[in-house]
Amino acid sequence: MRVHVQNPPGDSEFAVTEAQWRDAASRSPDMAGLDVTFAEDDDGFARAIGEAEVVLTFTRLLKRRFPKGALPGLAPRLKVIATTSAGLDPAAPFDWLPDTVALLNNRGTHADKAGEFGIMAILMLLNHMPAFADQQRRGEWKARHASTLEGRRVVIVGVGSLGGGIARRARAFGMRVIGVRHGSDPHPDCDETHPTDTLDAILPGADFLVLSCPLTDRTRGLLSRERIALLPRGAGLVNIARGPVWDQDAVLDALEAGHLGGCVADVTVPEPLPPDHRMWRTPGMVVTPHVSSDDRLRYNSRTLDILFENLRALRDGRPLPNRVDPAKGY
Amino acid sequence: MRVHVQNPPGDSEFAVTEAQWRDAASRSPDMAGLDVTFAEDDDGFARAIGEAEVVLTFTRLLKRRFPKGALPGLAPRLKVIATTSAGLDPAAPFDWLPDTVALLNNRGTHADKAGEFGIMAILMLLNHMPAFADQQRRGEWKARHASTLEGRRVVIVGVGSLGGGIARRARAFGMRVIGVRHGSDPHPDCDETHPTDTLDAILPGADFLVLSCPLTDRTRGLLSRERIALLPRGAGLVNIARGPVWDQDAVLDALEAGHLGGCVADVTVPEPLPPDHRMWRTPGMVVTPHVSSDDRLRYNSRTLDILFENLRALRDGRPLPNRVDPAKGY
Repeated sequence: MRVHVQNPPGDSEFAVTEAQWRDAASRSPDMAGLDVTFAEDDDGFARAIGEAEVVLTFTRLLKRRFPKGALPGLAPRLKVIATTSAGLDPAAPFDWLPDTVALLNNRGTHADKAGEFGIMAILMLLNHMPAFADQQRRGEWKARHASTLEGRRVVIVGVGSLGGGIARRARAFGMRVIGVRHGSDPHPDCDETHPTDTLDAILPGADFLVLSCPLTDRTRGLLSRERIALLPRGAGLVNIARGPVWDQDAVLDALEAGHLGGCVADVTVPEPLPPDHRMWRTPGMVVTPHVSSDDRLRYNSRTLDILFENLRALRDGRPLPNRVDPAKGY
Repeated sequence: MRVHVQNPPGDSEFAVTEAQWRDAASRSPDMAGLDVTFAEDDDGFARAIGEAEVVLTFTRLLKRRFPKGALPGLAPRLKVIATTSAGLDPAAPFDWLPDTVALLNNRGTHADKAGEFGIMAILMLLNHMPAFADQQRRGEWKARHASTLEGRRVVIVGVGSLGGGIARRARAFGMRVIGVRHGSDPHPDCDETHPTDTLDAILPGADFLVLSCPLTDRTRGLLSRERIALLPRGAGLVNIARGPVWDQDAVLDALEAGHLGGCVADVTVPEPLPPDHRMWRTPGMVVTPHVSSDDRLRYNSRTLDILFENLRALRDGRPLPNRVDPAKGY
């Protein structure tokens, strides 16, 4: 099978290397016979795409590489486009994707990293770390005491790979974990799971609210000003999903008013956040630059393991575990 | 048995209340017959101390309440002084304490709270949160990626109640946990345990170093400038012990030089840290105001449960589990 890896130009940190490919193939000996090419520029893409059956590429390049109507002509043998992101919102709408090509996301790669970031963020909110950061800026020594996580309630909106990684750790700390998802399939690491349309009834009981869902037409603006008001006073908020999932100005207003106890935001509107944006200086707000889910050491090895698992399914005629439903967007 | 609870004057948050006493007695029915008095002022202390067999009090009042030579005359029936702190360094040296009176610390009360604070601090250091806090002050969006805790090495100096709580959680995250303690008794949550005098050989292998030991003559200045230099470049440092356990200026110099990757300090020299102290503004430093180990909701109930466990041992003629050895200081 002919596989082409199209790396982002000049991105040395996350580019998939030939050495990483060899390591992954040594873990999956049945994949050792794959015929693989690597490129990071337009010429390399043009040379490889006509013969490629599988392309592994970064999500933010997808629509540029495959403009609407280009497929299948550009790549007549193409069966699979595998992406290195969990969230495919930059590639929506999927009108450029013919039914004959399976689009894969990279869900599963981020679970441990996002899980650790998420439980760190919850512990920081519990322990008043956003307030202490504000105090540190002022040189103010003022104790604020906290208890432990045991028995506290966390509502996790989106319990896929990212949210599931957080749910598992939250349970290990004795928290009560309430998952909210499209549909209401139970999740092994949640005490309860509820459909998204019941969110209004769930928010008043949340000590912590974590947003870890994909950005789709259904989730855009999900955490509205009205829903923020439904959270109990002092609640902590974490967003590792996407900025447009919440009404960001309403979040900042709620922090300034003291309604929210604190917030850890790994995603913002826009990204990067401009230096003079109010969000940097809103009391109780901790901003990180979209790093919650990317494991520098293990990212590419997991990405390739997941790709090989899907190619194995393709070879055996089974459904591809990471295939995205364009109608749902994830 | 006659018990007197001497609360700190005006400290409403941590004062032991009669309601908390009744709740604790309901969990320990064999203690329901204790004759208890409460006071927070000098008059109340003077009225009660002559008859008291047991006093429960705050550590920082000990030397004022029992000046050298005052015992046993001041309290001829006194058998036990129970304190609400884990660390008794404010009461040292113990030349005011006759052999006939057992001094108890409050070890065990802080394990869960300190454990959660400690793993939070390690996760923050792993995830570059001190650097992101610096960037947030400047309004700078610049990604720094991190991996997960699995396989990373944490050296914990002092694996009593506080350090043990951290060790247990660090192991749950897949870390390699190296305990350092007086003697070298194995600890169930450490992969290795070493005596303090081997520290110089251990520091070069530490991804993270946690100080959670009591402050005694042995540990004062333990983390010297020379030992900081033995840590690998980029190591993370956590101090929930006492400020004098490290050379604080050397820590701040190592952060400024980029030798240390970051630091979370819950204790400082002096406390409170003055507003103009360099420590507030040293890059990579996160300061919290001595709150790591005090669980606001559960502190007093655990304190009383531990007191009753010791009084039960006293009644039965067994060694008191929380008795402090004045020669060791803990």
